[in-house]
Amino acid sequence: MTDLRTSSIPGPIDPPPRLLMGPGPISAYPSVLRAMSAPLVGQYDPFMTEAMAQTQELYRAVWDTTNQATMLVDGTSRAGIEAALVSLIRPGEKVLVPVFGRFGHLLAEIAERAMAQVHTIETEWGQVFTPSAIEQAIIATRPKLLALVQGDTSTTMNQPLDEIGAICERHGVLFYTDATASVGGNDFAADAWGLDAATAGLQKCLGGPSGSSPITLSEKAVEVIRSRGRVEVGIREDGDPDASDFIRSNYFDLAMIMDYWGPRRLNHHTEATSMLYGARECARLLLLEGRQAVIDRHARAGAAMLDGVRALGLQVFGDVAHKMNNVVAVRIPDGVPGDPIRARLLTDFGIEIGTSFGPLHGLVWRIGTMGYNARLDAVLTTLSALGAVLSQAGFPARVDAALEAASAAFGPTSKEA
Amino acid sequence: MTDLRTSSIPGPIDPPPRLLMGPGPISAYPSVLRAMSAPLVGQYDPFMTEAMAQTQELYRAVWDTTNQATMLVDGTSRAGIEAALVSLIRPGEKVLVPVFGRFGHLLAEIAERAMAQVHTIETEWGQVFTPSAIEQAIIATRPKLLALVQGDTSTTMNQPLDEIGAICERHGVLFYTDATASVGGNDFAADAWGLDAATAGLQKCLGGPSGSSPITLSEKAVEVIRSRGRVEVGIREDGDPDASDFIRSNYFDLAMIMDYWGPRRLNHHTEATSMLYGARECARLLLLEGRQAVIDRHARAGAAMLDGVRALGLQVFGDVAHKMNNVVAVRIPDGVPGDPIRARLLTDFGIEIGTSFGPLHGLVWRIGTMGYNARLDAVLTTLSALGAVLSQAGFPARVDAALEAASAAFGPTSKEA
Repeated sequence: MTDLRTSSIPGPIDPPPRLLMGPGPISAYPSVLRAMSAPLVGQYDPFMTEAMAQTQELYRAVWDTTNQATMLVDGTSRAGIEAALVSLIRPGEKVLVPVFGRFGHLLAEIAERAMAQVHTIETEWGQVFTPSAIEQAIIATRPKLLALVQGDTSTTMNQPLDEIGAICERHGVLFYTDATASVGGNDFAADAWGLDAATAGLQKCLGGPSGSSPITLSEKAVEVIRSRGRVEVGIREDGDPDASDFIRSNYFDLAMIMDYWGPRRLNHHTEATSMLYGARECARLLLLEGRQAVIDRHARAGAAMLDGVRALGLQVFGDVAHKMNNVVAVRIPDGVPGDPIRARLLTDFGIEIGTSFGPLHGLVWRIGTMGYNARLDAVLTTLSALGAVLSQAGFPARVDAALEAASAAFGPTSKEA
Repeated sequence: MTDLRTSSIPGPIDPPPRLLMGPGPISAYPSVLRAMSAPLVGQYDPFMTEAMAQTQELYRAVWDTTNQATMLVDGTSRAGIEAALVSLIRPGEKVLVPVFGRFGHLLAEIAERAMAQVHTIETEWGQVFTPSAIEQAIIATRPKLLALVQGDTSTTMNQPLDEIGAICERHGVLFYTDATASVGGNDFAADAWGLDAATAGLQKCLGGPSGSSPITLSEKAVEVIRSRGRVEVGIREDGDPDASDFIRSNYFDLAMIMDYWGPRRLNHHTEATSMLYGARECARLLLLEGRQAVIDRHARAGAAMLDGVRALGLQVFGDVAHKMNNVVAVRIPDGVPGDPIRARLLTDFGIEIGTSFGPLHGLVWRIGTMGYNARLDAVLTTLSALGAVLSQAGFPARVDAALEAASAAFGPTSKEA
């Protein structure tokens, strides 16, 4: 019998203080952490049912939609992506994925796992697609679904989506976006932009922990998914659907997840209650502050960090006009060792900034200003520490100028205003 | 623009007091709730890496295994089931599922979604299978994998597993069990029983919230999964595997999940940090008390509830010799309305007991004693309230006898001992 000696059992979890200024996950709002520790209730308790309904209504406002099918998928943001793709795409159907960073590759990968015929178009890292480039690819490939990342943290780019829905409508294509890194910190309008499906995670601009994926589905998407409905044998009743082209996943079967969240409350998984509490609080905070106010705060914090790192003497990567508000890719100066600088920020200051993937690996740091940390003090603290560490490494960082530029870009804080 | 008026935004989450005595989810241990609200750290923070490694080591002791591949799947217990099945079974391969309740049907359903050829054998609800019945079915169907529920809360039965591993070994069959409802409160020995894969959830005997699924895999299972490995394009390097019979899910690809938890720390999902903290605390508490001591406590609490409901004057369902320690199915007496009684327990006493599924729907209540609530005071409180409500409904419940019988069955509490 394997058993740990009592002396080898670690103590209660006791994380070190961290200011998370990477591309996510970021430090959660304190009240989200408090919500996570609320006592549990049963999954059909009237309180639970009401909390689920409230959460749906709150996320309708976050997504800017009237979609009835607005829910949470119990898993991280990529669980929401997979649920959307595996439920919307039948094996063999064509999917178009415009790739402008790592997370476009991820959508293609997940669609391939769902046995779709995947077509990709690519643009250089640091750029986004024009609507006409996407329309041409749609005409060339005639996909069933367009899967398009909105904000790709690997490049910091924010793909404009506002003209894409009309293109998809014109060509009879379903339109899905992965808004994990962008929603809450950048413009988003599910209905106005003609989206059929969108998914997210909590650990970016929404300011919560990873582990719950908000999703919203248009009526057209719901119709596609319902046509593939199949209620599992253990709880199936007469008249329940049993489609032969069923969705190739039980856990991600959005038809069953809709029945669980809908009036029928048909048992599927056991809702992750603590994650629900956290997701509810993320949306509640966002709406209390005001959706547009939160986006504006991300824009100001992002501008402050951008102007700040430039004033430090650093260069940024990519087409800054299309940068997400909430993350910037900073070129690592020649002769400065990227990873040791990040390590010193973490160990000496408790500040985390991000490394990077693929073609940018070793070339840039990614610095985030999102959710709770889209604040001027978080920006100034980070710039000051980064400047100090860079100076020690021999790079002539101009900290005073950086702090001044950041403060000017952020504008008056609410207390001053 | 859809926006909620501030006045329509609900307040912070504030659940009513509940004693959750159903078949799960149950009230979490207070220290697990506290762990859920610990501050976040980055996913590659040395503290996070260490917390993940500690969690793996703690769950090796929970599962009673030396399996290196012992991890969490980020989702509810059925996410763990789907990860195991979709990673172990190639489309077209045969799977044998002995069904003795709803969750056997679920395993069959999930295997069908994974495009397996599924064979089921069934036994009456309230019974379990003999090893020879399972061996005969293996000989008749020659499956690649046997998928067997250990504890099925729908019937309260606990399928003996100790002789099954040897049978699977003899016939070259992989052996998977769904231990969601049983592990922590009933005997379990992954290595001694020859298991190749086992999965669970936190919301039963482990005393945490739903949303994280502990999993353990034998070396043989790892070999099967590795042979199907495929590292996603966005992060693939030269020499990384790219199997053509890849796992038909990205999120549930255990090869990638092993690389994320393993020394390579290859990015897959962003670990659900708060759920990790909670899962770690569930295992930590279990091992501090002692694995066998926790199982014994479940046995005593289960015996107390069993003897208690019988002394109240109620009958129980199924083969009690094979009942799980942590749940009992109580026949609803003739003339007593099942759902109104449950509703009164909830509204007047804040106590939740469970309804039931399928053939037992409307015939039994399911009463759990698990995790934090495998305590004598929780048993006595429940019996007392149930007796009171039954008496008011005209059933002659013998509360004094029930409390006496329960206390006698539980034996001395640790303070008295």
